[in-house]
Amino acid sequence: MDQTYFKKILADLKRGLISEEKALSAIQNFSYESLGFATIDHHRQLRQGFPEVILCEGKTPQQISIIAKKIVERGSMLLATRASKKDFAAVRKVVKNAHYKTDARTITANEPKLSPLTKRMILVVTAGTSDIPVAEEAVVTAKMLQQKVETMYDVGVAGIHRLLNQSDKLHKASVIIVVAGMDGALASVIGGLVRVPVIAVPTSTGYGASFGGIAPLLTMLNSCAAGVTVVNIDNGFGAAYAASLIAKS
Amino acid sequence: MDQTYFKKILADLKRGLISEEKALSAIQNFSYESLGFATIDHHRQLRQGFPEVILCEGKTPQQISIIAKKIVERGSMLLATRASKKDFAAVRKVVKNAHYKTDARTITANEPKLSPLTKRMILVVTAGTSDIPVAEEAVVTAKMLQQKVETMYDVGVAGIHRLLNQSDKLHKASVIIVVAGMDGALASVIGGLVRVPVIAVPTSTGYGASFGGIAPLLTMLNSCAAGVTVVNIDNGFGAAYAASLIAKS
Amino acid sequence: MDQTYFKKILADLKRGLISEEKALSAIQNFSYESLGFATIDHHRQLRQGFPEVILCEGKTPQQISIIAKKIVERGSMLLATRASKKDFAAVRKVVKNAHYKTDARTITANEPKLSPLTKRMILVVTAGTSDIPVAEEAVVTAKMLQQKVETMYDVGVAGIHRLLNQSDKLHKASVIIVVAGMDGALASVIGGLVRVPVIAVPTSTGYGASFGGIAPLLTMLNSCAAGVTVVNIDNGFGAAYAASLIAKS
Amino acid sequence: MDQTYFKKILADLKRGLISEEKALSAIQNFSYESLGFATIDHHRQLRQGFPEVILCEGKTPQQISIIAKKIVERGSMLLATRASKKDFAAVRKVVKNAHYKTDARTITANEPKLSPLTKRMILVVTAGTSDIPVAEEAVVTAKMLQQKVETMYDVGVAGIHRLLNQSDKLHKASVIIVVAGMDGALASVIGGLVRVPVIAVPTSTGYGASFGGIAPLLTMLNSCAAGVTVVNIDNGFGAAYAASLIAKS
Amino acid sequence: MDQTYFKKILADLKRGLISEEKALSAIQNFSYESLGFATIDHHRQLRQGFPEVILCEGKTPQQISIIAKKIVERGSMLLATRASKKDFAAVRKVVKNAHYKTDARTITANEPKLSPLTKRMILVVTAGTSDIPVAEEAVVTAKMLQQKVETMYDVGVAGIHRLLNQSDKLHKASVIIVVAGMDGALASVIGGLVRVPVIAVPTSTGYGASFGGIAPLLTMLNSCAAGVTVVNIDNGFGAAYAASLIAKS
Amino acid sequence: MDQTYFKKILADLKRGLISEEKALSAIQNFSYESLGFATIDHHRQLRQGFPEVILCEGKTPQQISIIAKKIVERGSMLLATRASKKDFAAVRKVVKNAHYKTDARTITANEPKLSPLTKRMILVVTAGTSDIPVAEEAVVTAKMLQQKVETMYDVGVAGIHRLLNQSDKLHKASVIIVVAGMDGALASVIGGLVRVPVIAVPTSTGYGASFGGIAPLLTMLNSCAAGVTVVNIDNGFGAAYAASLIAKS
Amino acid sequence: MDQTYFKKILADLKRGLISEEKALSAIQNFSYESLGFATIDHHRQLRQGFPEVILCEGKTPQQISIIAKKIVERGSMLLATRASKKDFAAVRKVVKNAHYKTDARTITANEPKLSPLTKRMILVVTAGTSDIPVAEEAVVTAKMLQQKVETMYDVGVAGIHRLLNQSDKLHKASVIIVVAGMDGALASVIGGLVRVPVIAVPTSTGYGASFGGIAPLLTMLNSCAAGVTVVNIDNGFGAAYAASLIAKS
Amino acid sequence: MDQTYFKKILADLKRGLISEEKALSAIQNFSYESLGFATIDHHRQLRQGFPEVILCEGKTPQQISIIAKKIVERGSMLLATRASKKDFAAVRKVVKNAHYKTDARTITANEPKLSPLTKRMILVVTAGTSDIPVAEEAVVTAKMLQQKVETMYDVGVAGIHRLLNQSDKLHKASVIIVVAGMDGALASVIGGLVRVPVIAVPTSTGYGASFGGIAPLLTMLNSCAAGVTVVNIDNGFGAAYAASLIAKS
Repeated sequence: MDQTYFKKILADLKRGLISEEKALSAIQNFSYESLGFATIDHHRQLRQGFPEVILCEGKTPQQISIIAKKIVERGSMLLATRASKKDFAAVRKVVKNAHYKTDARTITANEPKLSPLTKRMILVVTAGTSDIPVAEEAVVTAKMLQQKVETMYDVGVAGIHRLLNQSDKLHKASVIIVVAGMDGALASVIGGLVRVPVIAVPTSTGYGASFGGIAPLLTMLNSCAAGVTVVNIDNGFGAAYAASLIAKS
Repeated sequence: MDQTYFKKILADLKRGLISEEKALSAIQNFSYESLGFATIDHHRQLRQGFPEVILCEGKTPQQISIIAKKIVERGSMLLATRASKKDFAAVRKVVKNAHYKTDARTITANEPKLSPLTKRMILVVTAGTSDIPVAEEAVVTAKMLQQKVETMYDVGVAGIHRLLNQSDKLHKASVIIVVAGMDGALASVIGGLVRVPVIAVPTSTGYGASFGGIAPLLTMLNSCAAGVTVVNIDNGFGAAYAASLIAKS
Repeated sequence: MDQTYFKKILADLKRGLISEEKALSAIQNFSYESLGFATIDHHRQLRQGFPEVILCEGKTPQQISIIAKKIVERGSMLLATRASKKDFAAVRKVVKNAHYKTDARTITANEPKLSPLTKRMILVVTAGTSDIPVAEEAVVTAKMLQQKVETMYDVGVAGIHRLLNQSDKLHKASVIIVVAGMDGALASVIGGLVRVPVIAVPTSTGYGASFGGIAPLLTMLNSCAAGVTVVNIDNGFGAAYAASLIAKS
Repeated sequence: MDQTYFKKILADLKRGLISEEKALSAIQNFSYESLGFATIDHHRQLRQGFPEVILCEGKTPQQISIIAKKIVERGSMLLATRASKKDFAAVRKVVKNAHYKTDARTITANEPKLSPLTKRMILVVTAGTSDIPVAEEAVVTAKMLQQKVETMYDVGVAGIHRLLNQSDKLHKASVIIVVAGMDGALASVIGGLVRVPVIAVPTSTGYGASFGGIAPLLTMLNSCAAGVTVVNIDNGFGAAYAASLIAKS
Repeated sequence: MDQTYFKKILADLKRGLISEEKALSAIQNFSYESLGFATIDHHRQLRQGFPEVILCEGKTPQQISIIAKKIVERGSMLLATRASKKDFAAVRKVVKNAHYKTDARTITANEPKLSPLTKRMILVVTAGTSDIPVAEEAVVTAKMLQQKVETMYDVGVAGIHRLLNQSDKLHKASVIIVVAGMDGALASVIGGLVRVPVIAVPTSTGYGASFGGIAPLLTMLNSCAAGVTVVNIDNGFGAAYAASLIAKS
Repeated sequence: MDQTYFKKILADLKRGLISEEKALSAIQNFSYESLGFATIDHHRQLRQGFPEVILCEGKTPQQISIIAKKIVERGSMLLATRASKKDFAAVRKVVKNAHYKTDARTITANEPKLSPLTKRMILVVTAGTSDIPVAEEAVVTAKMLQQKVETMYDVGVAGIHRLLNQSDKLHKASVIIVVAGMDGALASVIGGLVRVPVIAVPTSTGYGASFGGIAPLLTMLNSCAAGVTVVNIDNGFGAAYAASLIAKS
Repeated sequence: MDQTYFKKILADLKRGLISEEKALSAIQNFSYESLGFATIDHHRQLRQGFPEVILCEGKTPQQISIIAKKIVERGSMLLATRASKKDFAAVRKVVKNAHYKTDARTITANEPKLSPLTKRMILVVTAGTSDIPVAEEAVVTAKMLQQKVETMYDVGVAGIHRLLNQSDKLHKASVIIVVAGMDGALASVIGGLVRVPVIAVPTSTGYGASFGGIAPLLTMLNSCAAGVTVVNIDNGFGAAYAASLIAKS
Repeated sequence: MDQTYFKKILADLKRGLISEEKALSAIQNFSYESLGFATIDHHRQLRQGFPEVILCEGKTPQQISIIAKKIVERGSMLLATRASKKDFAAVRKVVKNAHYKTDARTITANEPKLSPLTKRMILVVTAGTSDIPVAEEAVVTAKMLQQKVETMYDVGVAGIHRLLNQSDKLHKASVIIVVAGMDGALASVIGGLVRVPVIAVPTSTGYGASFGGIAPLLTMLNSCAAGVTVVNIDNGFGAAYAASLIAKS
């Protein structure tokens, strides 16, 4: 981050020019950077514990690369979701150490090298193979937020023994992210088996009356298992972000 | 049924006035009775194996009682669904031996006294207690259609051991009717456990995003377990009718 | 299937090392194979009488070909639905005897060579020409499940004599699958004519207020003919699977 | 109607004070009457051939009775639809010769005593008994518009022989109004049988996935039989009005 | 049409081998031609006065060209709607005298050369320029059905003087087809001005909350002007078919 | 308002204890009053120029009366919308000079006695008589906000001459509020005639496919007349509030 | 709980009749109690840490009272949600120490007397006064689950200073439940201010285009603030249950 | 504009051939130009103060270029929205001085060179970067209508300090256009902060449960801040047009 900004505050504080309170406020108000088309919220890391993340959809490759550069310049980690290969190509030009993960559609840089923040494990489960891209977005996100993550894929309720036989793994998790499309029933079943928070992510896989994810979204909102909360359709990022807040609490 | 009608046909046949084919056709075409406000399809018993059933909703008590009387007069069994107590009061006046079942909201008369048509058992399962009225409509219907019926109530997936511990009963059934509201996940779980047809009935129980049964309806239509078919919301009658067609096939 | 696995069980049983019960359980629990991105439910054939089927949509050609290979390696029949030509190309490389059917969009291999399981016939009817691809998915599925199948295409209710003139064929069927888009009225008309179960498949053909199949879906769910059950929009596979469960019961 | 108004125009015309053109214009512009809460369109009879009709829903009994009185005072026929008994009570006080029809929920007065305008017959058909109130609204409306009307009730497609056996009647009609709820399939079947315009009226009868009439509305809009047009759910009045315009053309 | 078929009937009739009634029935039952993927309803011309029309969407070019050839071979006029250029190319190969109209997306052949059936004029009106393709489908259809057609394009209510200034033309029409997207208000305004039936066609033009035509569809169904009936979104063909039935009545 | 609070600020200012800036800030920050179940935003009058308004729906009569009392105690004008008679009875007990308007369902007190703020006139127009209650809510609101208001009721587009003949009044308005249900077409027509902002209020009147106001809502959002903005269904208050902001600007 | 059951297990264990493992399993499998209409999941407390909760809606008062009695007999705490006064009257008869909270619509008994499980505080915030009943359901639930709870009511974003001035309280919470109807914007604003998990509860308050809670549900699912998860409309219980799982983790 | 037309009118007036009134009327009725596929409303500039604007979507490049030419020929300014590059290429050929703005997707010519009509400033605010194209459409429109415009982009509520820190700018605006997708919460927050009209534009950015803009549309319609009105999804043009009407009033 911008060292000068903080150095001056601390110097002023030391010299008694400003109070401790004032210094803290200045730091916390340290704020946004205006690029015309974007107002980067650098303050977020201080306020929420995690830096700003770029949702690529709806932005041009050029806009993404400029924002990415600004974030990386401050030494922050970079996470961009729903990124196309074209977006990555643009970012790559200005952020040399950026990585792209095809199935997760994520661009990352300055990945945390430290060990996970806590011993708590976030388990990411999918009902089917088609749900994996959304699950992988969650995996990448949680790792960037320095969480410990494990996965259990393709264990939908149509063959429930696949799930029940791995109940040990379920019981080891501190938070479980359930990614499912079509009938979305997996969230309710897992929600009824465990005693930890379950975050359900409906996916837009499926066809016909799944209506782009409305079917599993409704299923999950109506889950008869208490302790299940829901995020937007295909929002692997949001689920992992919330799971990380829970795990590090 | 109208004896004269058939007697004449048979007499004509005997005397060689009409061919066997003609006689059969006449019988099969034996048809409807016009009441002005209703055209009773007496022919249905011959054509489909089961007589016409009265859906009370939308009809006046007087209309219901007149139709009921006509059906009973022909010696047919009487089944009226979605009947209010007021409807029953009107029917009772003209069909002395009619019975009313409060939770199922059914009126019946001339109930079949014979033993079930087949050894096949139709199992009616509910996810919750609130789903029982719809399930009971199915039970009454199946019994009127001379089927063997058993029930397993309140075994929703939030406590899946309640279901798994009774898997013996599941495996004894020839057709299973799954009645569930809210997340409707039970149909998928049962569909994945058994090798018989499962008919799913979404119910309008629940609140908020269950949208009067849309949530479980969509869940069931998107069931990832093959072999699950679906009927209208709260349509216990329809499920039992289809199940009976399957069981007696 | 994996012979060694079962041979050992049976040998153990014979030598009295395990009880009959234990052996049965071991066989029935014979289970899933984890590929990381997929957990193949080999157990399904024992549990449900039919092996697992691959829904290609949402999976990469590579994933499909790996799963297909695993299934075929165990000697099971292969059925993959909603397969693109690209998917087939990938499968073809690892499953030499695979076949592709363009209109049905199915990949098959190890097709059953035996005669149908029962004398019962499943009749697949369409309202229009545009509904044929969905109907063909049903036909392929039913044949893979060793059923006897016949078809009657383009007999929608706008020219009802086309249907009524072929009523003989209708009456010969044990289960009827009605595939229709737009007004979906055909399911009700056929449901009212026959005494066997009717499985209705709404299709996404049509335009405007058919809303991708919602119109015929609602029509079919509200069918005033009893005995009609419904599957997901365009779900020819599901209809045929349920029909096969009924036919072989 | 207000005699003085027209008398003066005609007198002026006769005396050469105004031209023929001017007189016609004055008559055609003879127009609305403002009551503060309502602006009665007396002009409609001249412009459209039929006088204004009161839709009672949403109006207070007092407002209805005042409008009714104004209409009757001009010697026009009175038709008020969706009227409650309370509405009628209010109208009765100021329009002594008003009549109420319970099932149609209509108030009428100054009913036309003349014979029908044309020999053309409007046939009103319903799929079920529950659709009759909407059908009766159509019957009353058509009669008020001096049309010849016949009815055929409860001939839904689940028992299609009830309809086919009365095809003579169908073929005698000049316009057919098909009133149906639930699957709404009757409109397509009739539309395919006849060579006259069919006006389809979806009804809000039924339950569950009929969604208050959305199901039959969509069915009818997607009718695969050409020549079918649709009006609003439960809009018997609108169907009869359009049918009358057609019949008198 | 197939001459032999009818010749034989007439010969039989002449020789007294069949009754007049029988002959008529044979002719009227003259029926469908099965192509496997299609069951052509040749009977429609006799039953409904107009021959069968091909809806190209959902059919392959090959299927369309085979059906087209069969229709033309019988000497019937050919009308195919929603045809792509690719569809036309296929038809052209087998029906040399076929024509394609780009904006209307229609293929025609054996166009009627006779003068219109009646003096009645069908007026096709659009609210905007974007609605013209749907309007042109209506124009082509009406002309194929031997109607007299006129047009009035881009007279939406945002500049209502454009409409009012042409009211003469409105009053000359016997039926008016109003084609409008977005707010769909034009149907109500015209419906209130004229005394002839108005058929409203909502279009899928517009964006955002027009939801592919749902907005104008609902507007038109709720038209406060009596005499307006509605067809499916973008269904110019259906509107013209119904209008022709009305005009020739 | 709380005199002590402001007196102290002003006294402090006078004595030089606080700066002018500080005083202004203190006044502007003068803020909310916490009642446990409600946090009254007294600040709103300063911030937005109009005091807080009570939306009664969802509040108990007791809650409403307590809030009303607090508002009146500060000398502010009181406006409560969607109030039942029961709500009014409770308010009346604590605010003796409160008034209730039945059709508008409003409670008011401390009504402004001054003349309107500007010479600008807000015109409130309805399509039908059923729309008047919503219109009256707008009228009461605008008057409480010291605006000049006029009305024009029941001039829907089905009889467009009723509107065109009063175009003078339309052209005198500075802002026009158009209240319409069903087809909601009036907003587009008026929007096309005038050169001032039009605020459209869809109403929940009507039946069937008006879906509680969705139909006119969509019509208005898709208005082809530029300059039309829309508020929530039945939100007469919101329209008048926005219109007042415009008129006083 | 049923002492005898466990005593026997422990005695058996002590005597070496069963292994430790077996004993644990027996305890964990200690399971459900079948009442015919309900299958009480007594096991839930062991499996999930919290006992079963009764959702009263859809159950008869008699059913509720029987289940309540069974739960209380085992010494478990009782929580019944969405309970009417009639439900409470029935419960009161069999559970003497039961309490009813009118605004929360909850019945409780055997309330926990211990101090909260953790020092973590769950903050329940509402946007308006109308949202309080749902919030109170959350408060009661969290307290029954032995959590520390605080509230902040009526701080919606239309007067955002009400919220910002209390930001201290926001920052003290470990989990925040945001209850809001209408625009539901409060969840996003709070989600952006804090670094703890936010659980959003949309409510069915409001009117018109809030569509019974769909508007705030969608707003919350689309929250641009990461860390926000959502539960069903009006589901205060579910939010508090999930919050408690988080707080005690 | 067409000089001859007006010259003749004025000459006639001068010579006393027509009255002043008549002349005014003739000028105001100066009207539309019919191109067959379009009826240009040249009158709009006189009636509404702004000329007609071309919505390119749904029109062919050729149609657009012809209309554009006609508008420019009369010396009017040209504004075409939702224009593709292909549309621009066609226009460029006939209107040499036309300009294209890629992000706004607008074609303009004869841009006003005068200073803004008033000192009032329209502020265009976006929640995110993805909302900028819609905002730019508004900016271009407002400038063409000779308004003073400023922008504030990417200040969504997830980082609310970005907005609050720029409150000065908010308070300087006379009308504020808020462009936001996803949760659309920004409109409510700004609506609560300012005392000027806020026009909210929902955008179709986002994914999943934003349903192409339905989520922010509903949020905005349900805004708990009074003074917020809403236009169609992505309708930057409409918002700016209404804002301009307000600003110049």
